[in-house]
Amino acid sequence: MPGLTLGDTLPNLEVETTHGKIKLHDYVNNSYTIIFSHPGDFTPVCTTELGMMAAYADKFAQRGVKLLGLSCDDVNSHNEWIKDIEAFNNGHKVTYPIAADPKKNIIKQLNMVDPDDTQSPSRALHIVGPDKKIKLSFLYPASTGRNMDEVVRALDSLLKASKHKIATPANWKPGEPVVIAPSVSNDEAKEMFPQGFDTADLPSKKEYLRFTVV
Amino acid sequence: MPGLTLGDTLPNLEVETTHGKIKLHDYVNNSYTIIFSHPGDFTPVCTTELGMMAAYADKFAQRGVKLLGLSCDDVNSHNEWIKDIEAFNNGHKVTYPIAADPKKNIIKQLNMVDPDDTQSPSRALHIVGPDKKIKLSFLYPASTGRNMDEVVRALDSLLKASKHKIATPANWKPGEPVVIAPSVSNDEAKEMFPQGFDTADLPSKKEYLRFTVV
Repeated sequence: MPGLTLGDTLPNLEVETTHGKIKLHDYVNNSYTIIFSHPGDFTPVCTTELGMMAAYADKFAQRGVKLLGLSCDDVNSHNEWIKDIEAFNNGHKVTYPIAADPKKNIIKQLNMVDPDDTQSPSRALHIVGPDKKIKLSFLYPASTGRNMDEVVRALDSLLKASKHKIATPANWKPGEPVVIAPSVSNDEAKEMFPQGFDTADLPSKKEYLRFTVV
Repeated sequence: MPGLTLGDTLPNLEVETTHGKIKLHDYVNNSYTIIFSHPGDFTPVCTTELGMMAAYADKFAQRGVKLLGLSCDDVNSHNEWIKDIEAFNNGHKVTYPIAADPKKNIIKQLNMVDPDDTQSPSRALHIVGPDKKIKLSFLYPASTGRNMDEVVRALDSLLKASKHKIATPANWKPGEPVVIAPSVSNDEAKEMFPQGFDTADLPSKKEYLRFTVV
């Protein structure tokens, strides 16, 4: 099935949400934004997930990141369900909007369709950049709840790579060394990273694996 | 850009790999299989990632899961680069095949194209089921190295949900309680989960959030 993927521009849809009507590009504005779908209101994994998003809201706010939930239920259903979410998740308030897609139009355009029930969303999460383009996607089935720590980790990688010519290695965690982008020559790297960098000594003798801290 | 997504069948392509020619469906056969792309040989994040995959190979093997790497470099390049990967990653052997896609045909069909350099793969990872369908996808940009612990966690969720009518809540880790699928009635749940289950008491009084251990 065709669908929105990395590098594509988020369609500028007008959507009904628990915070009123919004146009997606206006909502993103100049911020990194996490758009995440859940299969349905009053269902188990979703209640834990939207509650966890509420519990992590401060971490996202500190990073200047906006949140937008989405399912095919209507706004009235969302508002009733939020009471369950907040009660189950130690009272963490759901302060982010949840979009309603009862016509199942938005989920198709955002590549969020559940393959086992095409009338429902899968558990998809896109990180959209300030340029309104998809930077990173987690496409999980209805049966797998997301890991918010991985969402935060991936976001920290994106934010760091948007400020420096670096990338983050496998299993990287914030605070750990990063690698210098291959497009940066050693001479450029000396200017760009005055804190210095360590080059791995590899059998090929090629100097491409250079670690620094930013 | 259109592309392979959840629920789609993996195209049965014939691909050249470091272990010889394979047809993708024959390789998957009856196993869960992780197909993961990397932007290029002799580049930094990729060296850490393919090494980390090698370091985690036992965890995947214990779960009966196969691995297949992929980039647009040729097999000779892969074979030379493997020496660097193994040297940098404490000698962990790269025992899984790495596919070669010098014509950049496979990456298009597998939704693994880097939006910033359409001649290279992004850092995409699909988990394919024994039915050859895409069960879960991580679509990361070239600058974000994956987190193998999250890959293992998601895989454990998929494997558990393939055996029981359950799903895993947000931030779930193996050994923690799971939730019973909404399609299972309370009466069915009593038969299906003789170990018992706990139902969350929610403001809606709906009994949809039921925890058990499997």
